[in-house]
Amino acid sequence: MTTFSGSDHFWKGAQTLKVPMELFKLNRQRLCEALRAHRTLPPDSFVFLQGGTSEMRYCSDHEPLFRQESYFHWAFGVIEPDFYGAINVQNGESILFIPRLPAAYVAWMGKIKEPDEFKKIYHVDHVYYVDELEKIFDELVGKSKLILVLNGLNTDSGKESQAAHFPGIEHFHIDKTTLHSIISECRVFKTDMELDVMRYANKISSEAHKFVMLNIKDGMQEYEIESLFQYYCGRYGAMRHMSYTCICATGDNPAILHYGHAGAPNDRQLTSKDMCLFDMGGEYYCYTSDITCSFPVSGRFTNEQRIVYEAVLDANRQVMKAVRPGVSWVDMHLLAERTQLEHLKAAGLVQGDIEEMMSARLCAVFMPHGLGHFIGIDTHDVGGYPNPQSRSTLVGLKSLRTDRTLEERMCITIEPGIYFNQSLLNNAYEDEKLKKFLNKNEIDKYLHIGGVRIEDDIAITSDGCELLTVVPRTCEEIEEWMSHNSKQADGKLDYE
Amino acid sequence: MTTFSGSDHFWKGAQTLKVPMELFKLNRQRLCEALRAHRTLPPDSFVFLQGGTSEMRYCSDHEPLFRQESYFHWAFGVIEPDFYGAINVQNGESILFIPRLPAAYVAWMGKIKEPDEFKKIYHVDHVYYVDELEKIFDELVGKSKLILVLNGLNTDSGKESQAAHFPGIEHFHIDKTTLHSIISECRVFKTDMELDVMRYANKISSEAHKFVMLNIKDGMQEYEIESLFQYYCGRYGAMRHMSYTCICATGDNPAILHYGHAGAPNDRQLTSKDMCLFDMGGEYYCYTSDITCSFPVSGRFTNEQRIVYEAVLDANRQVMKAVRPGVSWVDMHLLAERTQLEHLKAAGLVQGDIEEMMSARLCAVFMPHGLGHFIGIDTHDVGGYPNPQSRSTLVGLKSLRTDRTLEERMCITIEPGIYFNQSLLNNAYEDEKLKKFLNKNEIDKYLHIGGVRIEDDIAITSDGCELLTVVPRTCEEIEEWMSHNSKQADGKLDYE
Ligand SMILES: [Mn+2]
Ligand SMILES: [Mn+2]
Repeated sequence: MTTFSGSDHFWKGAQTLKVPMELFKLNRQRLCEALRAHRTLPPDSFVFLQGGTSEMRYCSDHEPLFRQESYFHWAFGVIEPDFYGAINVQNGESILFIPRLPAAYVAWMGKIKEPDEFKKIYHVDHVYYVDELEKIFDELVGKSKLILVLNGLNTDSGKESQAAHFPGIEHFHIDKTTLHSIISECRVFKTDMELDVMRYANKISSEAHKFVMLNIKDGMQEYEIESLFQYYCGRYGAMRHMSYTCICATGDNPAILHYGHAGAPNDRQLTSKDMCLFDMGGEYYCYTSDITCSFPVSGRFTNEQRIVYEAVLDANRQVMKAVRPGVSWVDMHLLAERTQLEHLKAAGLVQGDIEEMMSARLCAVFMPHGLGHFIGIDTHDVGGYPNPQSRSTLVGLKSLRTDRTLEERMCITIEPGIYFNQSLLNNAYEDEKLKKFLNKNEIDKYLHIGGVRIEDDIAITSDGCELLTVVPRTCEEIEEWMSHNSKQADGKLDYE
Repeated sequence: MTTFSGSDHFWKGAQTLKVPMELFKLNRQRLCEALRAHRTLPPDSFVFLQGGTSEMRYCSDHEPLFRQESYFHWAFGVIEPDFYGAINVQNGESILFIPRLPAAYVAWMGKIKEPDEFKKIYHVDHVYYVDELEKIFDELVGKSKLILVLNGLNTDSGKESQAAHFPGIEHFHIDKTTLHSIISECRVFKTDMELDVMRYANKISSEAHKFVMLNIKDGMQEYEIESLFQYYCGRYGAMRHMSYTCICATGDNPAILHYGHAGAPNDRQLTSKDMCLFDMGGEYYCYTSDITCSFPVSGRFTNEQRIVYEAVLDANRQVMKAVRPGVSWVDMHLLAERTQLEHLKAAGLVQGDIEEMMSARLCAVFMPHGLGHFIGIDTHDVGGYPNPQSRSTLVGLKSLRTDRTLEERMCITIEPGIYFNQSLLNNAYEDEKLKKFLNKNEIDKYLHIGGVRIEDDIAITSDGCELLTVVPRTCEEIEEWMSHNSKQADGKLDYE
């Protein structure tokens, strides 16, 4: 098998990225250092994590393709289900616990790997079987040392992570409160090796977006776009998983932020007059990308499409120029709102004083979501609100997935947007605080656009940011790139 | 949205299949008839089913693309998560319970549909909200009537289906034992409308296999095959879900029956000498297909490849000729084994008396799995063992997913195979009962082939079967089809 053939890296062959297993060793080291710096934690503690489990769909034997749980991936890079892992905080020693597979596995699932093989693949210090967990913990940890397990709130899902467990763990000394915030904080800051994977995931997903632009035709169904994108990511990037369900929105659909879900399954037919909003990203070895491209099916912007597009692009680029360590993400959100409102005012869609609009939270009518979110092993990556109580309650701002001050090595999306959601607009036309700003006659001319979002992934550097996403962004770049769209007959795909 | 635009069918646009919503109404009618025929069940009972639920991956907010729970799909055809459904057994009236969505849904997930809209889409008699479940059950069912919930064993997964539940259901009169076997038995027999969907899923997946044959090249990675197949199914068949994880096995990998899982992720590079075993199928509106094509990367069979291939094909075709109502599936498995052993004997891989080989269960060394399984809304469809105790304990036969006598309207796969699994062979060489039959020197010449499986989906008719799968099957057909493989440069896809 290619994936771990080199024994010191993960690799999917051909032009795909080699990811050194050192990446995970360094992550574990960073975690141990952070834990050792904790004021009250006994230094001889152990971290104990549970990997993702193999699942079957409801009562059937259908097994969805396994994808590793994100904290476990960050610490160990294991691709198989049903593992556990432990780390000695004092000396950094790492242990994996692997499931003991029945002999029949050899015919159905392949060669049964011995503990020593996994030790070499994953560069850990010891490998035991899951059924030895209690015995090994007895020997290594004993009843006196502390076992740190993961338990805490994910502020995007509202769900609590489930503490690792084995029968008998109740006899040990367990700490459920320390690990979650410290390991989440480690995940916020990407190492050089992690940044390489983030760059690769963005590069392939960017190319896949460009591939879609070359092959789009009016008359297509939106789900064909999803297939084109996934095909490129899978074939040329070895991405078996998308970061999230593809959003392939055309016509009015761009106004639906999470369009593409099972109840709105990318099922509209494209017309030559449509604006597209395609929010799609693949992941490589669990590192995600999250990219939105907006462009006209025709390859040529109309006047209205251009006005909205350039408003959003200006917001995106203003933020991109402003970000650097020390800058507040809330301020960036407000900068994007202000920039977009200025454009909407210049075009006559809104009227009045910009500062008054800002106080009235007018921009949330057009952009009900936050400016962007941390990105990493989860698309909406952890650590956005170390203190969940700090979250704003104001419209628009409360949708921000982080309110933090930016620091070097954070990875975050910049994704301003302007949407024409009839329902949100109708509410606003009836709202005493908002209606005076809105020029319904002008706005009506833009309803057919649905919406525009421009989403890039960046890494914060010491003095600004690195742009990871590489797609045509200005109207001119998009029109130039799409002029190579060959409008060939179905079934032929173009890529240069 | 296209999907239910016609209001009396499900349709994904373009050349995809229109599925009448009558399909589900007829399913419900058939269920009610079967329940009314039950000797002791009060006729004024109600069926109560719970649809699949929206999920997030571990503690994150990542939502895998929702796929409906299979019993619920069979009864209602609902594409959204978090529904419940009830059926009045006496008069067949149907009720859907829909989640009450928060107002914010309109910006994130799209227009909030009213109960009346769902009533029209799904052709049910009443629609209420999930939070009205207890109230509606109080009015309609009362404390005296029986509520039938789904609870029983899936013999493929070993899992129990979870009975539908709402807070307060404990105050009603619940029957957990009757529904499971009766609804499972209904699912075994496909209606004409269901057969149309099965035909369509097979047609598209067959075309996708042919598309792979046209575009395969040595030097490719196995996962590129997966991408090609999924691309075709998704783009031309509107199949967002595969029936199961694609098995793209080359080299030695065909010997691993469920190759392609997360721990063996289709990651080998193809060479021109390889035999391929590609077991891949897409599903349309939850109706699955399950097709295996085996062929040489080069497009030309070597002598050894042809011997193994034709042994398996003969078994497949002998079974296909023999199946009809009244025939035992166990006998079909034995027919396939016998046919394959005869070929292996003729080629000198095994020696001795065929009947002795059969008694010694020799063929299970080369084919450790069962001949085939019911197929429908699950790939391994329900109803294989109405009496789980009837299952054989003999090698090979115990892997059969059904031991039933065939009846009209059953859909089942025919998938004989011959595999050269080094580990199974090594065990056999040491087995007193088996080793005398095995000619190791000859077998060694075939090890590089890995294995061959030929899997077709059929529907049992009144006097035989209908073949749903439409792919090149003889060596000559395969060689002819693959002669159109253009060996173009990467990124160009061919389809005629
Ligand atoms: Mn995003
Ligand atoms: Mn099968």
